[in-house]
Amino acid sequence: MGRPITSVISIRGFDRKGILYVLEQSGKMEQRPHPRLLQGHVLGLMFVEVSTRTRLSFASAMMRLGGQVLDFGDPERSSFKKGEGLSDTIRVMAGYCDVIAIRHPWEGAARLAAEVSGLPVINAGDGANQHPTQTFLDLYTIQKTHGGIDGLTVGFLGDLRYSRTVQSLAGAMSHFDCRQCFISPESLRAPQHVLEELEERGVQHEQFSDLGEVLPQLDILYCTRIQEERFADRLEYEQVKSSYRVDRALLEHCGVKETLRIMHPLPRVDELSEDLDATPYAVYFQQARNGIPVRQALLAMVLGKL
Amino acid sequence: MGRPITSVISIRGFDRKGILYVLEQSGKMEQRPHPRLLQGHVLGLMFVEVSTRTRLSFASAMMRLGGQVLDFGDPERSSFKKGEGLSDTIRVMAGYCDVIAIRHPWEGAARLAAEVSGLPVINAGDGANQHPTQTFLDLYTIQKTHGGIDGLTVGFLGDLRYSRTVQSLAGAMSHFDCRQCFISPESLRAPQHVLEELEERGVQHEQFSDLGEVLPQLDILYCTRIQEERFADRLEYEQVKSSYRVDRALLEHCGVKETLRIMHPLPRVDELSEDLDATPYAVYFQQARNGIPVRQALLAMVLGKL
Amino acid sequence: MGRPITSVISIRGFDRKGILYVLEQSGKMEQRPHPRLLQGHVLGLMFVEVSTRTRLSFASAMMRLGGQVLDFGDPERSSFKKGEGLSDTIRVMAGYCDVIAIRHPWEGAARLAAEVSGLPVINAGDGANQHPTQTFLDLYTIQKTHGGIDGLTVGFLGDLRYSRTVQSLAGAMSHFDCRQCFISPESLRAPQHVLEELEERGVQHEQFSDLGEVLPQLDILYCTRIQEERFADRLEYEQVKSSYRVDRALLEHCGVKETLRIMHPLPRVDELSEDLDATPYAVYFQQARNGIPVRQALLAMVLGKL
Repeated sequence: MGRPITSVISIRGFDRKGILYVLEQSGKMEQRPHPRLLQGHVLGLMFVEVSTRTRLSFASAMMRLGGQVLDFGDPERSSFKKGEGLSDTIRVMAGYCDVIAIRHPWEGAARLAAEVSGLPVINAGDGANQHPTQTFLDLYTIQKTHGGIDGLTVGFLGDLRYSRTVQSLAGAMSHFDCRQCFISPESLRAPQHVLEELEERGVQHEQFSDLGEVLPQLDILYCTRIQEERFADRLEYEQVKSSYRVDRALLEHCGVKETLRIMHPLPRVDELSEDLDATPYAVYFQQARNGIPVRQALLAMVLGKL
Repeated sequence: MGRPITSVISIRGFDRKGILYVLEQSGKMEQRPHPRLLQGHVLGLMFVEVSTRTRLSFASAMMRLGGQVLDFGDPERSSFKKGEGLSDTIRVMAGYCDVIAIRHPWEGAARLAAEVSGLPVINAGDGANQHPTQTFLDLYTIQKTHGGIDGLTVGFLGDLRYSRTVQSLAGAMSHFDCRQCFISPESLRAPQHVLEELEERGVQHEQFSDLGEVLPQLDILYCTRIQEERFADRLEYEQVKSSYRVDRALLEHCGVKETLRIMHPLPRVDELSEDLDATPYAVYFQQARNGIPVRQALLAMVLGKL
Repeated sequence: MGRPITSVISIRGFDRKGILYVLEQSGKMEQRPHPRLLQGHVLGLMFVEVSTRTRLSFASAMMRLGGQVLDFGDPERSSFKKGEGLSDTIRVMAGYCDVIAIRHPWEGAARLAAEVSGLPVINAGDGANQHPTQTFLDLYTIQKTHGGIDGLTVGFLGDLRYSRTVQSLAGAMSHFDCRQCFISPESLRAPQHVLEELEERGVQHEQFSDLGEVLPQLDILYCTRIQEERFADRLEYEQVKSSYRVDRALLEHCGVKETLRIMHPLPRVDELSEDLDATPYAVYFQQARNGIPVRQALLAMVLGKL
């Protein structure tokens, strides 16, 4: 009975009210199982780019609502090879399912899928562009751990230049009254257009190079991986890597709020120590789990069941 | 309550009455969902040869009848590698499911599967031999678009020498009162045994090299791909390719019946222009979708539920 | 209402009473379908090592109890590649399912999975270590074909040095009053620790090189493959291979009990002739089928439904 949503292509299609509606529905999904809500419906998974977690999370979300999952499988072994265009493939696939979740290396692939399939489509990541269900599960995690989003100070750490995840989340959080702190080496600063958008919307934001300086003020620390290939100089990479490694000793040394919560889209490599896993700061595994109720809510919404 | 069918190995096992019975049941499947008809049944997919569309179509058909699908996966990574024979593999697999759909590069593999498994088997294509569910969905599409099969003029276009699809469909249509037109370059003519069979059954048939000559008379134009590797001479290939390309301009130039419908087993490459997609002539995407009710009917029949 | 089992990691966790309880529950599963017992539950398959049969058997068992199956797919294409550790992967996966069946080349992987996931875990084979569901289906097959396990004479044939299957089964059968005969070439004898354990438990056991000598006394002949790479000398391999090949002529020549039953974990190559398939001695395909009720019983038990 909520707002009608036919496809979920970009987080930019959602304003504050739209976001809160999705989070509210996600909460309901988590509180009470709906094992037959999508019975008789088939979710088509079209993962042209590998993303094991996202694919499994969509599948599990659908299964737990009583729906079935049709995985289009490894595209390298499919009819793509026979030279068929993406539009034709989507048109044929659309005959086999009721809703499509698509992951594709090309920007705009999800929108194309929605146009040619005639079905509701959920974007599961299209290149450097959008991955809205990740943003929703990040927002849901923040809301759940802090009881709300307004009033928080959030720190984004790591490779802010190339992180689709961080840029989308920063944009979505601009609908809320938050202070945004961007912590990165000089060479991996958040892009200008991201900062300009925050400026326009009057969002309080700052840039930092030193994690220790801002850590004590944070309610949320959102970590991302820093990849060696981004650096021309190996030495610089090693420095950044060690100065942005988050572990128990660092938190104790800097002093952090008791209510600090640490997030990470996973997989992590070295940037986040395993010695944090058992602390109350760590919510990254819960964050991954939160993908289930969020995707359940979105699937149910686009299929007209909420 | 219909004719008992235990396996679907070849379209040759069906006479006019048998074909019409399958088409009638397919129509019923399309008109009304049966979301629990095959509940508790498991369909085993044994695709030793890749065929994404056919595999997904079978899976979707089963799921929408409430059944479950067990995909035997990529055979390159399975126990085949340990040197086990096909018979043993099928015998073991048979313990895990209630009906098997098999695709295999070897002629006769489906019949073997039916013999050794003790289960109902549906042939999803065995080498150059048979692919009966494709023929049924082609027949179902023709019947649906024209209200019946008798009395039609059908043109088969392209590589008629190597097309299993065309040869099977031509054979099946010989049970109906149709005129069959075979349009191909000299080197890709339909095999003699196909034409002889039509002769024996008194089916009106003709061969053409020029598509434009026969196009205005057709009710159905069934296109297939022409593959470069069939030609010794690249120049000849280019000529054939361009003279057999079907597009809007060609239809307008030649003049066609308003009720002409164009079919294609897909994937298409260049032989069928995308400028036809939005015209009423194009039924190839519907044709792909028709695989669902047809396979539903066949699955239900071999499992004794119709 | 039986003994509470939270994970099935090793057959060593089961004593005589525990084993008989699992076999009894397996029998009930086979006698009566329970198509909704696990409805709403998701089984996660984590097969880091390929094992088509075991994977499909688990999947089919779950589907036939009304549960759903989430296959984590080919780990070579998953996030493992990004350098993530196994513990993290398992923690994330655990959020997507209710029970995990894991196959992994590392000894101890299943126990690790049980520890970090917080879910019930069934070991589907961890390296050279344990594969308890195979042992249970072997025991179930023996009990079913002979009406019980006590009092039987069992012969293990082939590569006893490296066969996890044989070593586990021998250990499990030491809880029963059986005579165990180990038939192998000198170089592939069962390891000392296996024999010592039987000794300690007072199990009657003997070693043989000549199959013909002991064959007439056997109630069960459990065959395994002999692999060429185990032999330094090709000639010795050829001799062993031909002297341990079991076929109809051999059984007739040696004279065997009418109630002899021949088992094999499959796949077989040359060591077991196809001319036995149609005889009452052959139970290896039934043995494979018995994996379904056994895995159903174990899944239901760890999920608290039995």
